[in-house]
Amino acid sequence: MSENEKNTAILLMHCPDRRGLVVHVTEFIDNNYGNIISLDEHVDREAGIFFMRIEWELDGFLIPPDKIGEYFGTQIAVKFNMKWSIYFTNIRPKMAVFVSKMSHCLYDILARVHSGEWDAEIPLIISNHNKLKSVAEQFGIPYHVFEIDKYNKAEQENKELELMEKNDINFVVLARYMQVISESFINRYPNKIINIHHSFLPAFPGAKPYHSAYERGVKIIGATSHYVTKELDAGPIIDQDVARISHSDSIEKLIMKGRDIEKLVLSRAILLHIQRRTLVYNNRTIVFG
Amino acid sequence: MSENEKNTAILLMHCPDRRGLVVHVTEFIDNNYGNIISLDEHVDREAGIFFMRIEWELDGFLIPPDKIGEYFGTQIAVKFNMKWSIYFTNIRPKMAVFVSKMSHCLYDILARVHSGEWDAEIPLIISNHNKLKSVAEQFGIPYHVFEIDKYNKAEQENKELELMEKNDINFVVLARYMQVISESFINRYPNKIINIHHSFLPAFPGAKPYHSAYERGVKIIGATSHYVTKELDAGPIIDQDVARISHSDSIEKLIMKGRDIEKLVLSRAILLHIQRRTLVYNNRTIVFG
Amino acid sequence: MSENEKNTAILLMHCPDRRGLVVHVTEFIDNNYGNIISLDEHVDREAGIFFMRIEWELDGFLIPPDKIGEYFGTQIAVKFNMKWSIYFTNIRPKMAVFVSKMSHCLYDILARVHSGEWDAEIPLIISNHNKLKSVAEQFGIPYHVFEIDKYNKAEQENKELELMEKNDINFVVLARYMQVISESFINRYPNKIINIHHSFLPAFPGAKPYHSAYERGVKIIGATSHYVTKELDAGPIIDQDVARISHSDSIEKLIMKGRDIEKLVLSRAILLHIQRRTLVYNNRTIVFG
Amino acid sequence: MSENEKNTAILLMHCPDRRGLVVHVTEFIDNNYGNIISLDEHVDREAGIFFMRIEWELDGFLIPPDKIGEYFGTQIAVKFNMKWSIYFTNIRPKMAVFVSKMSHCLYDILARVHSGEWDAEIPLIISNHNKLKSVAEQFGIPYHVFEIDKYNKAEQENKELELMEKNDINFVVLARYMQVISESFINRYPNKIINIHHSFLPAFPGAKPYHSAYERGVKIIGATSHYVTKELDAGPIIDQDVARISHSDSIEKLIMKGRDIEKLVLSRAILLHIQRRTLVYNNRTIVFG
Repeated sequence: MSENEKNTAILLMHCPDRRGLVVHVTEFIDNNYGNIISLDEHVDREAGIFFMRIEWELDGFLIPPDKIGEYFGTQIAVKFNMKWSIYFTNIRPKMAVFVSKMSHCLYDILARVHSGEWDAEIPLIISNHNKLKSVAEQFGIPYHVFEIDKYNKAEQENKELELMEKNDINFVVLARYMQVISESFINRYPNKIINIHHSFLPAFPGAKPYHSAYERGVKIIGATSHYVTKELDAGPIIDQDVARISHSDSIEKLIMKGRDIEKLVLSRAILLHIQRRTLVYNNRTIVFG
Repeated sequence: MSENEKNTAILLMHCPDRRGLVVHVTEFIDNNYGNIISLDEHVDREAGIFFMRIEWELDGFLIPPDKIGEYFGTQIAVKFNMKWSIYFTNIRPKMAVFVSKMSHCLYDILARVHSGEWDAEIPLIISNHNKLKSVAEQFGIPYHVFEIDKYNKAEQENKELELMEKNDINFVVLARYMQVISESFINRYPNKIINIHHSFLPAFPGAKPYHSAYERGVKIIGATSHYVTKELDAGPIIDQDVARISHSDSIEKLIMKGRDIEKLVLSRAILLHIQRRTLVYNNRTIVFG
Repeated sequence: MSENEKNTAILLMHCPDRRGLVVHVTEFIDNNYGNIISLDEHVDREAGIFFMRIEWELDGFLIPPDKIGEYFGTQIAVKFNMKWSIYFTNIRPKMAVFVSKMSHCLYDILARVHSGEWDAEIPLIISNHNKLKSVAEQFGIPYHVFEIDKYNKAEQENKELELMEKNDINFVVLARYMQVISESFINRYPNKIINIHHSFLPAFPGAKPYHSAYERGVKIIGATSHYVTKELDAGPIIDQDVARISHSDSIEKLIMKGRDIEKLVLSRAILLHIQRRTLVYNNRTIVFG
Repeated sequence: MSENEKNTAILLMHCPDRRGLVVHVTEFIDNNYGNIISLDEHVDREAGIFFMRIEWELDGFLIPPDKIGEYFGTQIAVKFNMKWSIYFTNIRPKMAVFVSKMSHCLYDILARVHSGEWDAEIPLIISNHNKLKSVAEQFGIPYHVFEIDKYNKAEQENKELELMEKNDINFVVLARYMQVISESFINRYPNKIINIHHSFLPAFPGAKPYHSAYERGVKIIGATSHYVTKELDAGPIIDQDVARISHSDSIEKLIMKGRDIEKLVLSRAILLHIQRRTLVYNNRTIVFG
């Protein structure tokens, strides 16, 4: 199941749309003997922007991995004013998981990493509470508590950031972490902090969405995974899903049904991020299937 | 498929919850030799209200149909401070369909009635436009145009109401009717006007929800059928459904995918209403499966 | 909503996979000043086959439409042993609809074509029964009855084929047509006859699938649209969908819920076919989103 | 979230249908001062069988819990030839979990029990392999390995049964256990062994369903939880769910997407069983929502 024997490069790019973009990029890979195994492109016609994710095998590729970026930047990207990034599937990204008191998302994430379902590492778990320390211990992962109040927030976040840097963290997962992250923290991990919100956004942002859903009498509840931006629950959506409910479901039952959606939607978003299938533009995500 | 050979009575009721309610109602039916074929009850524990829908066969029932209400009211309802209504499945309800320029919901409704899928009649279609007259003609249904502007609204609505009364209309379906109904009109048909809104409410109320959905970058769109109340798009929800979309769907494609959800969700709501499966309380619906 | 102002060409192709295929095809279009507006490729790694759908604008394209096939065949396809076909969005395909006694799929199809939702024409409806003649008349479409028994099948099918040829029919839709089509008929329209089967294939092939679903006690029913091949209900699947049911649903209710899935799944398949988004290989479909 | 403060009794019953059944049962509870908090009934009209689940609060109920069965049997059940069973929500059922090599269902189950989401206990895990021992250890649950070959099956199953008896096991969960259970074992736990099959039954029973799904080219995959009977993958279905796939999903990707459905569908079935919401009749389940 693990894909870490795969030895491929992934290029994510976007630039103003024009004729010939696909040709130039695929030629670059083809001329250097790369075998393209997947190509997904999208054109935002309103904005006039071209997006592409392209993945190719590194075996036999003429340019050594650590030089590909340089060559691509020099020969291709500059011509088309491209923003791009390159990833290698043999390098496993490292995620920091933030939690508070609910364990369902955390268990789902830990089980997937532990069983080798995902090619990623969790060097540490951060929390504002002690409660889930024992879960971290079950999986042998360091658990750091940073209690946060209105006076110490900046200071505590700085300690968290320091710890994350020391551990080479590539991205952050807020697995029902019940604290608002400050703007300066977010700016350190732009489009790299994934949150799960327990509603079908933009319906019911903020606190207690299941209570609001019950009050409004909706017949379907949902969950939304998104990248965190400074505006609360308004960042680019990565994935959403829903579950049918009825008048007979109490708020407690909504919360219970919601947990199952939350953990799936969060885990799907994490996997898309790990596999470099997401691109953010204008507060929306392009998700390459 | 048609169920109009069915000869049953349906009682919908609600009252303050207390012990013994199911017993008293079922005894009333049983003692009079009624065979209960379905019983659904719900208790709203927060509000302390008991709700029930009970359906029984009229063959052999001791009380004649036109007296059942009187007997039930006198012997049972009064004891428990019940609000109730009674319906007979051999009487087909009559609906007025309101449309503007889009035909997809109208065609779906007409095809279902015309083919005998629903036990209901459509004595007339009302519109603020001429455009769908030919659709009404295809099905041989009178089509009345009442053009509405800011000066004539009250007057035109009165004419509509008159026409509806003359046709013994029981309930109203707004099948993508692009006009806000006035409060006085609504009060004439309380919880009897079904609207379809082309979003997953409470997300994107009001105009152009698909445009808003596109802007926000949601990954799922939806539609909501609800009873119309004076607050726009805020009435009790009857049914909702959703469809998965992606970054590659243009607004036009959202509108196209949305049409299929709209017509299904509206038609499901209409059927629930025809079958007397809905009860409204506190701006929420109890929907008995 | 109609897209017939669109003036694009669509190439569907497949061939043995090798490095450089995307480059060669995109260069061909680019060098002739075609603006690619969508490119979808797929590699079946087991079979070693490359598939692609590419669509580009014809405005300013150097090669005249009626010559594109020739040029592409000569310069590109021959090099790679490609099977390919070309379509132009300004030419509306013509479909023959076959029906028996149930009207729900037929109404859905007619309403979509009539309202301009699809860029296609229905020159004729063919049936083995008189029953739906009035539906055809509502939409002003010729309705031809060919009663079929065990003695006249070959003869009647030949008359149908003749009539279809005279009307330049491009593809056939079996909209709950309750007759098995003979192999020689199928061979005249390979991968061009779309059927809707009222189960989640491969579960419950053949007759009375809702009865079988009820007997088996499944909790979800479905419908499947597929291209017809000589083996009954075993052709390449285009689309499927499902609906949740419960123990309380009678067979009649399954049939009723099923109708809504059938008509949606069939209509989605027809649209995919009209938009040239399907490719068949090894009894499976590639469906380009 | 845990409901173990709840102090209610649940009666599950079925008997030949006749007039007055609801009245007699509800009177029994009401006359003894029980407050009914939920009542679900179903009549299988074809078979002429009445089914009911009724739950009431024990506080103030006149009959002591250990006598309720006797009283109900003597005064009610005997009159109507009822089959019935009674449960008390303050008694947590004990389940044995059987696993082989895949951990996703096991983790999901352990996390739910461990976090208090379910009112149930897992006294032991049984496997035919050593592989998941470490998972059991993470949660501090005894893990017993019974390797099974064609010679020792009866003997090993007897040891398993002995162990289960010693631990007062009430029901069994086969969480992707890759061994067929013998008929004599099944007879010891009739309708008390829950299996998860990794297909949308009755499609693709037996081994390697994802491979078969891929070969057939379905557009939706599924999973099915069911009670185990002697006929393989043919027992009464408790729950099913599906996920949409496409031509671009390899078998590995089907397996990966399937895991998420499997664990959810299995866990939903377990919860329904724990909450005594299932009744089996004629190889089908009645599932009271």
